[in-house]
Amino acid sequence: MSTSAPVSVAVDVMGADGGSDLCLEACRQALQSDAALMILAAGEQALIEQRLAAWPSTLAARIEILPAEGVLPADAGAASALRRGQGSSMAVALNAVAERQASAAVSAGSTAALMVLARQILGMLPGIDRPALMAAFPTARDRCWMLDLGANIQVDAERLCQFARLGHVALTALNQVRPRTYLLNIGSEPGKGPDAIREAGRLLSADPEIDYLGFIEADRVFDGEADLIVCDGFSGNVLLKSAEGAMRLMFGEIKARFSGSLCGLIARPRLRQLHDSLHPAGHNGAPLLGVRGTVIKSHGGASAAGFAHAIGLARLEAQRNLSGAMAARLWAEDWPSS
Amino acid sequence: MSTSAPVSVAVDVMGADGGSDLCLEACRQALQSDAALMILAAGEQALIEQRLAAWPSTLAARIEILPAEGVLPADAGAASALRRGQGSSMAVALNAVAERQASAAVSAGSTAALMVLARQILGMLPGIDRPALMAAFPTARDRCWMLDLGANIQVDAERLCQFARLGHVALTALNQVRPRTYLLNIGSEPGKGPDAIREAGRLLSADPEIDYLGFIEADRVFDGEADLIVCDGFSGNVLLKSAEGAMRLMFGEIKARFSGSLCGLIARPRLRQLHDSLHPAGHNGAPLLGVRGTVIKSHGGASAAGFAHAIGLARLEAQRNLSGAMAARLWAEDWPSS
Repeated sequence: MSTSAPVSVAVDVMGADGGSDLCLEACRQALQSDAALMILAAGEQALIEQRLAAWPSTLAARIEILPAEGVLPADAGAASALRRGQGSSMAVALNAVAERQASAAVSAGSTAALMVLARQILGMLPGIDRPALMAAFPTARDRCWMLDLGANIQVDAERLCQFARLGHVALTALNQVRPRTYLLNIGSEPGKGPDAIREAGRLLSADPEIDYLGFIEADRVFDGEADLIVCDGFSGNVLLKSAEGAMRLMFGEIKARFSGSLCGLIARPRLRQLHDSLHPAGHNGAPLLGVRGTVIKSHGGASAAGFAHAIGLARLEAQRNLSGAMAARLWAEDWPSS
Repeated sequence: MSTSAPVSVAVDVMGADGGSDLCLEACRQALQSDAALMILAAGEQALIEQRLAAWPSTLAARIEILPAEGVLPADAGAASALRRGQGSSMAVALNAVAERQASAAVSAGSTAALMVLARQILGMLPGIDRPALMAAFPTARDRCWMLDLGANIQVDAERLCQFARLGHVALTALNQVRPRTYLLNIGSEPGKGPDAIREAGRLLSADPEIDYLGFIEADRVFDGEADLIVCDGFSGNVLLKSAEGAMRLMFGEIKARFSGSLCGLIARPRLRQLHDSLHPAGHNGAPLLGVRGTVIKSHGGASAAGFAHAIGLARLEAQRNLSGAMAARLWAEDWPSS
């Protein structure tokens, strides 16, 4: 039994592709593995009550229902989320953070909707215009963090610099070390790539706070020389998903070539371990940085175990008070005003 | 001994990161493995003559030197290539194609320089504004082609449609089957992604020639449902290099986990075979589509064997007269004028 103080996490239990049953199963797994966790489940009250009736009472007692009027569709855009999303399960979960009922919110719903609703409901950290999704992935040395991952598909140089600041203050707060920071580009020479990236490179080179080391190409990202990669949300999404697809292809081929052999049998646990340690999808849950509060985005298609992992991450980041630490650093340090 | 008619390929022997020695070693390997190949070596005459003096006379007799005044730097941009590139080894190789001395040209020099010089020296196919690099990579079923791969970093909807047309006519000419064509995006729903991609999706849906099937995400690219992926050069470069880096990471981890074990010894040849079949870098050489003539871009950092592979590819495409077949189709078919 953990002796930590209880932490309340608001969970949008309607937003995942797998529906509310998958989300509630994830809540059950998260509660079971963490005795100090409380969950505020945002969704359709009657439906959640019916499901909870089948739960052991000790677990059901640690869930409180936050009634919501509906759910945003998985492909909801920013405009329709702002127009019609106010009573949605996603907005209700975010409001619980704004009103300090919960220390963090988790949703597997539309990224565009989560970005605009979190911005509207929680407000932004000082000097930051737009939230960005950050996630870690494995490298040959340790791991590397990257942002943005799909929240902002087209960005200018100033937004790229804001992402660098967000990643910098988040990782400095988490690890007490200044992250070695790079801009993703299609060449490492200063003249390479689009105007916005070259201009961001010039601005970051002149910023004494950030340990900016230049451009990095997508293959070198996995070598481990970078702690933080800054990019627009389109490229970040392509990089992460391409690595996922390439690894899935390789695991499939390895399985096919080794199956049925003694060597295959011996190798299986080692390959499984490798798969789990490398596969980016194994680490579900990306913090939405830049808003005033802890918000975790889960993959829409996550499994119950994956969604439970995102809930656990929300609990961890809330306990660390990452958002508060970031706000303090952004206020304290002498960042250029935007 | 092959009985095919001899094919002459013009090779820029100065442009690779490994220098002229690597390029000439690649020429030697290519000539040795293909008795019907002739090479026109564009570069510094005295230097090439000196190297050829050490070759067996039967091989040296199949190389003709095209004297060039200099070499463009690896990071040469479009503007400096147009200003100072006219007498360079790259331009000399392209001129040999324009003047029909050679059936194809190969260079490992700057992509931006190759694009503008090929466009200027060879001219464009009907209805096409800008050349694009296309390459194949392995999937779970067979392989998939993608363009653009770095020649055009920012493109509008019309350019994306031109790339789709280029890939369509090239693959139809090569395989006699209409390729299943997708646009790379960060979601598969029609409302997802940047304006240019959504607009290109609308235009391609209305095009009766192209078998356009919608958006595809970067992980599904490796599943094998697509024959042709269309994207801007930045995203294409990120996708391919990310897959390369992820696979390199996996091979490194597998090696580390299996080394020293009997299972590792048994597995080694199978893993090597897998590496060679999957690794995108194993298939060096990308056709530059859209220009009037066959031009192959090699990786700047290719090995001698890799560069020899690119020379072999140039010979194959010249023999197939890919560029001529594409021109005929672009003239014949009722494409929307741009």
